[in-house]
Amino acid sequence: MPEPQGSAHAFDEAVRLEPSGNGRFTGHTSKKYWNFVGPFGGITAATALNGILQRADRQGDPLSLTVNFMAPIKEGAFTVDTKLVRTNRSTQHWSVQLAQDGETEPVLGALAVFAARRATWGLREAVPPEVPGPEACKRFEPRLEILWPQMYEMRYARGRFGTENPDSVTHAWLRDVPARPLDFPALTAICDAFFPRIFLRRPRMAPIATVSLNIYFHVDAAELAAEGAEPVLCVAKAQVFNKGYYDQEGQVWGRDGKLLATTQQVAWYKE
Amino acid sequence: MPEPQGSAHAFDEAVRLEPSGNGRFTGHTSKKYWNFVGPFGGITAATALNGILQRADRQGDPLSLTVNFMAPIKEGAFTVDTKLVRTNRSTQHWSVQLAQDGETEPVLGALAVFAARRATWGLREAVPPEVPGPEACKRFEPRLEILWPQMYEMRYARGRFGTENPDSVTHAWLRDVPARPLDFPALTAICDAFFPRIFLRRPRMAPIATVSLNIYFHVDAAELAAEGAEPVLCVAKAQVFNKGYYDQEGQVWGRDGKLLATTQQVAWYKE
Repeated sequence: MPEPQGSAHAFDEAVRLEPSGNGRFTGHTSKKYWNFVGPFGGITAATALNGILQRADRQGDPLSLTVNFMAPIKEGAFTVDTKLVRTNRSTQHWSVQLAQDGETEPVLGALAVFAARRATWGLREAVPPEVPGPEACKRFEPRLEILWPQMYEMRYARGRFGTENPDSVTHAWLRDVPARPLDFPALTAICDAFFPRIFLRRPRMAPIATVSLNIYFHVDAAELAAEGAEPVLCVAKAQVFNKGYYDQEGQVWGRDGKLLATTQQVAWYKE
Repeated sequence: MPEPQGSAHAFDEAVRLEPSGNGRFTGHTSKKYWNFVGPFGGITAATALNGILQRADRQGDPLSLTVNFMAPIKEGAFTVDTKLVRTNRSTQHWSVQLAQDGETEPVLGALAVFAARRATWGLREAVPPEVPGPEACKRFEPRLEILWPQMYEMRYARGRFGTENPDSVTHAWLRDVPARPLDFPALTAICDAFFPRIFLRRPRMAPIATVSLNIYFHVDAAELAAEGAEPVLCVAKAQVFNKGYYDQEGQVWGRDGKLLATTQQVAWYKE
């Protein structure tokens, strides 16, 4: 029996999927995570990943996820088709598509690798930026017509949206509202929760849209669970804006300087 | 009638595909681009992209490419299946799979976005590293049992393979051997032509394999053609090695500090 809806976190409501057989699930867009003309891309990417996580034959933890946003998603129901493309000794390769009534072609396509990780030699070469702790950073109060930013506690240490910036670098503490223990879907959504880099360099509103989002997960489920519901430190920057498209690269840091995920995306911008 | 083989560059031979209808092509592995137990991953990624480039209904230039290497590719023939998943006003979404006889599941899966780019406001925020020109950097002489490095002129300015390094950063000039005008398949292969980062930090030979490769192309075909056959400046580094997997991020710079592509990959390593 499904849990009473009142007790679930809005994030879990938003990524909730009901199985309908053969790797297919049905879901519904969430008003709480609404963006301008469709759901916040991070919540849709998290929903696609959740489809794989719901599969009984899933093995291991997410290692890489690429989500291509092919068309705007309309308010309402959607189907998530998950397909296990190949199983190896310690990895699984998955593909996922989202479809909606009235669309003859998919609205989203994704590839994911899941892996059974084990202890090996390791080295962390990247270092997190030195920033004040979350308590010392003022909480961002979204006064926007879009709703999803209210679902995050965002505390900017550098590179604030809507002000002029010498570069596109942002350092920000993020966590779900209300606080929620981190898991792979939540981490996926956070990887898309940095405001569009273009608004830090050209601070006027203009249409933009993420075209493709890529995430590498650098910890397993046990390491991620150990982060609890504490804020994570997000780093994001753009490298180039050219001929209608720009990139964004990011890092998500946990406690004790643990690198939880790295992410890259390419986005379309108008003019 | 196919061109006489003697006149083609080995790169073009390696990525050559013969159409067999319905978006399917046949190709053949190249001994010249051989790695340890299969083809150099970059040449396979370039071949997958080439499948889309051969399609008569292809519109625009490559914008993003994700290639998941699912299994070793054996010497011999393979099929490349290209599928146009969705066409929008200025973008196309593609999926590609490679299959080989004797394998019931695909050996490679890819997603690509192609886009018609046009002039807009632009900004290059990233800057190339200051390094001596290619003439001033000693040419790397591969003395390896693997063959593909001989297909590149590699001139290292920093972060040389097989020596001890304080970090995993490499700055290197690369071009095809013999010199060949840059195009999207060649740029794709170059994005995988940095030696595995782990060998810069733990310089002992041990099995590694790229699991997923992601590339964003930041120029259109005309801008890329303007680069000609000059060496490109490649920058690569790793961020973290943990529990059997590590990442690599890279940039490929053209003349006048033009950022041609950014790339990211996740690779498996043993112990």
